[in-house]
Amino acid sequence: MTTPLNRASHIRLTSHPGAGAPVRFPISWGAPTARERGPVIGSVTRPSDRNVIGAYGGAYALYRALAVAAGALNPIQRPDLTDTAPVVDIPANPAWRDPAAIVALDPWGHLVGEAFADEIGEGVDIRPTIAVTRAQLTMAEVAQAIDKGRLVPDGAILHPGGAVSVTKIAIDPVWHLPGIARRFQVAEPTLRRVLFEQTGGIYPELVTRPDLAVFLPPIGGATVYIFGDPARLADPAGRVTCRVHDECNGSDVFGSDICTCRPYLIHGIEECIRDAQTGSVGLVVYNRKEGRALGEVTKFLVYNARKRAAAGDTADAYFERTECVAGVQDARFQELMPDVFHWLGVTRIDRFVSMSNMKYEALINAGVAIGERVAIPDDLVPADAHVEIEAKKAAGYYAPTPADGAMLGDVRGRGIDDVSD
Amino acid sequence: MTTPLNRASHIRLTSHPGAGAPVRFPISWGAPTARERGPVIGSVTRPSDRNVIGAYGGAYALYRALAVAAGALNPIQRPDLTDTAPVVDIPANPAWRDPAAIVALDPWGHLVGEAFADEIGEGVDIRPTIAVTRAQLTMAEVAQAIDKGRLVPDGAILHPGGAVSVTKIAIDPVWHLPGIARRFQVAEPTLRRVLFEQTGGIYPELVTRPDLAVFLPPIGGATVYIFGDPARLADPAGRVTCRVHDECNGSDVFGSDICTCRPYLIHGIEECIRDAQTGSVGLVVYNRKEGRALGEVTKFLVYNARKRAAAGDTADAYFERTECVAGVQDARFQELMPDVFHWLGVTRIDRFVSMSNMKYEALINAGVAIGERVAIPDDLVPADAHVEIEAKKAAGYYAPTPADGAMLGDVRGRGIDDVSD
Repeated sequence: MTTPLNRASHIRLTSHPGAGAPVRFPISWGAPTARERGPVIGSVTRPSDRNVIGAYGGAYALYRALAVAAGALNPIQRPDLTDTAPVVDIPANPAWRDPAAIVALDPWGHLVGEAFADEIGEGVDIRPTIAVTRAQLTMAEVAQAIDKGRLVPDGAILHPGGAVSVTKIAIDPVWHLPGIARRFQVAEPTLRRVLFEQTGGIYPELVTRPDLAVFLPPIGGATVYIFGDPARLADPAGRVTCRVHDECNGSDVFGSDICTCRPYLIHGIEECIRDAQTGSVGLVVYNRKEGRALGEVTKFLVYNARKRAAAGDTADAYFERTECVAGVQDARFQELMPDVFHWLGVTRIDRFVSMSNMKYEALINAGVAIGERVAIPDDLVPADAHVEIEAKKAAGYYAPTPADGAMLGDVRGRGIDDVSD
Repeated sequence: MTTPLNRASHIRLTSHPGAGAPVRFPISWGAPTARERGPVIGSVTRPSDRNVIGAYGGAYALYRALAVAAGALNPIQRPDLTDTAPVVDIPANPAWRDPAAIVALDPWGHLVGEAFADEIGEGVDIRPTIAVTRAQLTMAEVAQAIDKGRLVPDGAILHPGGAVSVTKIAIDPVWHLPGIARRFQVAEPTLRRVLFEQTGGIYPELVTRPDLAVFLPPIGGATVYIFGDPARLADPAGRVTCRVHDECNGSDVFGSDICTCRPYLIHGIEECIRDAQTGSVGLVVYNRKEGRALGEVTKFLVYNARKRAAAGDTADAYFERTECVAGVQDARFQELMPDVFHWLGVTRIDRFVSMSNMKYEALINAGVAIGERVAIPDDLVPADAHVEIEAKKAAGYYAPTPADGAMLGDVRGRGIDDVSD
């Protein structure tokens, strides 16, 4: 079968500054308006319009490629954005105009249909990198909390049948490389080179096109869930309850009892609902960083190494096992995480449902104030997850009752062949 | 700060066949043993050993790069694989030696520590692309099923406290490009070029290195959950109950009621547990293909377009909205999905907990027989998800009671500003 291609027969392996015509759509990161900033164009339907490294949708561009290869997708198809605009206003705030405050997402990414309607109308393929919609959530644990009287339906946020009304926002990563480099305190050329080399040579434009400052990395993004009135997030007089949660498919979806991920997420949602009922805004930020951003294969290898250790799966050796297998204890690097708070205009989290010192410090360093820190209640920690939580407390996690370091060798999980109730 | 780099100052933008020394580790896809097949080397610690396009961990290589840039990870660090080997045997079967049967994963990917112990010992950085571990799952819905008497603990698979014992396997994608091309019935050079172009130029080696046949794409992989004895999966006399589930974070984790994803997954898990208790093996294959492999931003844009349609969110227009926004109704392409069944040696699924005609046909075409097809019970379909399920039935999904096409315009979801219980 023949597959339509979107270019002539010449393949350009990489590009270099000045090789083509002047860029029609320059990006001026941090400019005061969407039009002055310029659109982020990561589509491939008209290559001459592109002004970034990478492609819209990040990793999903590979599936788009398969769709084209299979003849199911016309490679020059542009999206019809009719009726897709955000369901609520996320208003611009000063951080959108500060090139250092937001470096890992496009603050105008949800507004392209409006800001660049003329260009889109004349055929420029500009796509949203952020989408804002509404949803109703039905979770067994929320229904249980109602049954037990911990949550009481109000008919607006929490409904009598147990459904929860939310606004939710999907955000694809959009990296401004000079800003990313500043966050990690490295020179931009070093950052570009390391990104290129450590991936085995992804996107040579990282090193050949210093004039292209924006990169759409093929990694997962974030989803934001808002409980209550989104307009109050940026209100200095408003109160915010927040859980920042990093993906853990094994617990979040399947309830693996080796960690506290889903129980803590559910606790965060419960706190968000309850506080939203009394005028706060609840906020859950779900970041796609499976297995501390090391991926699930590495995670399962570490589980085996922990469970097979001669001394047993003990809290004192918890981080060491990850470092042996992965070379690093954690690759999540919360340095980029605060961007979404700047984007939403959140300057203070009154109740932070997280014990992570890394998340806490990243937010404080980024100028987001934090009031109370809310630990996971002891009765929500699964049987096999005490190893994790005690090791984290000893390593600096916030806890109302600090870990007793001398006892860490005694906090022990199941062995690899054990089964328990 | 200075960051250690793992190469001299010369940057090689892309490579070409014959440019370097002969490849020390050739890959002979489909060879009868791991050693004859050769290791898949996607690490960057010693570039001369590499024999693939891409990097281990796919997208997570970007986070590894950030770890290096931040000075937290030594770029030449190799993993210590002590104690990480699979907790159960996944024995080789004839499909591992058939280069056409498995093209999207490395059948020897979990065994590298054993098969290539000598090479790893002498410093070759070979890493597993598959990890096999054990877990216990605690899910609120399983506890409810016990309370209601639908599930009865047996003390081995389902414990009195509600925990479920499973074997679970994380699998990173490893693509043999000639085989992928055959699956999609395109010429390999066309596939390579489309993958390169549709991603905005990811990995020029796709087009410059026809001699490198293996690609580690930066997309999500799969996780397999096994209920009961894994050794019986490949037993021709054994029975298998199976759910193939494609990721939907909004429902799987947060319980959004616009689709049937989590309810159907839970139903599949319940069927797997019950059947495993009577000697079948239960199998859940969870594929990371968020939003039909279009990503969550596109998915939320489609939700808005559906909910704002003048005629309302009706089943007859369900697929059309996705196609308008994304250019294609679905980008999941189940053609690669059957590989995991070949890898596990599953030749027949006795009870298939899915209504998808695409999954069904992909499995049948791949030679995996299917007995009963198990629909989602009507009482598990969330309020707002009837639009989806009726549209899918009309489009060819299996259903005990086929959809009435004439009525599709009457199956209607909530409007964009509606809230209901």
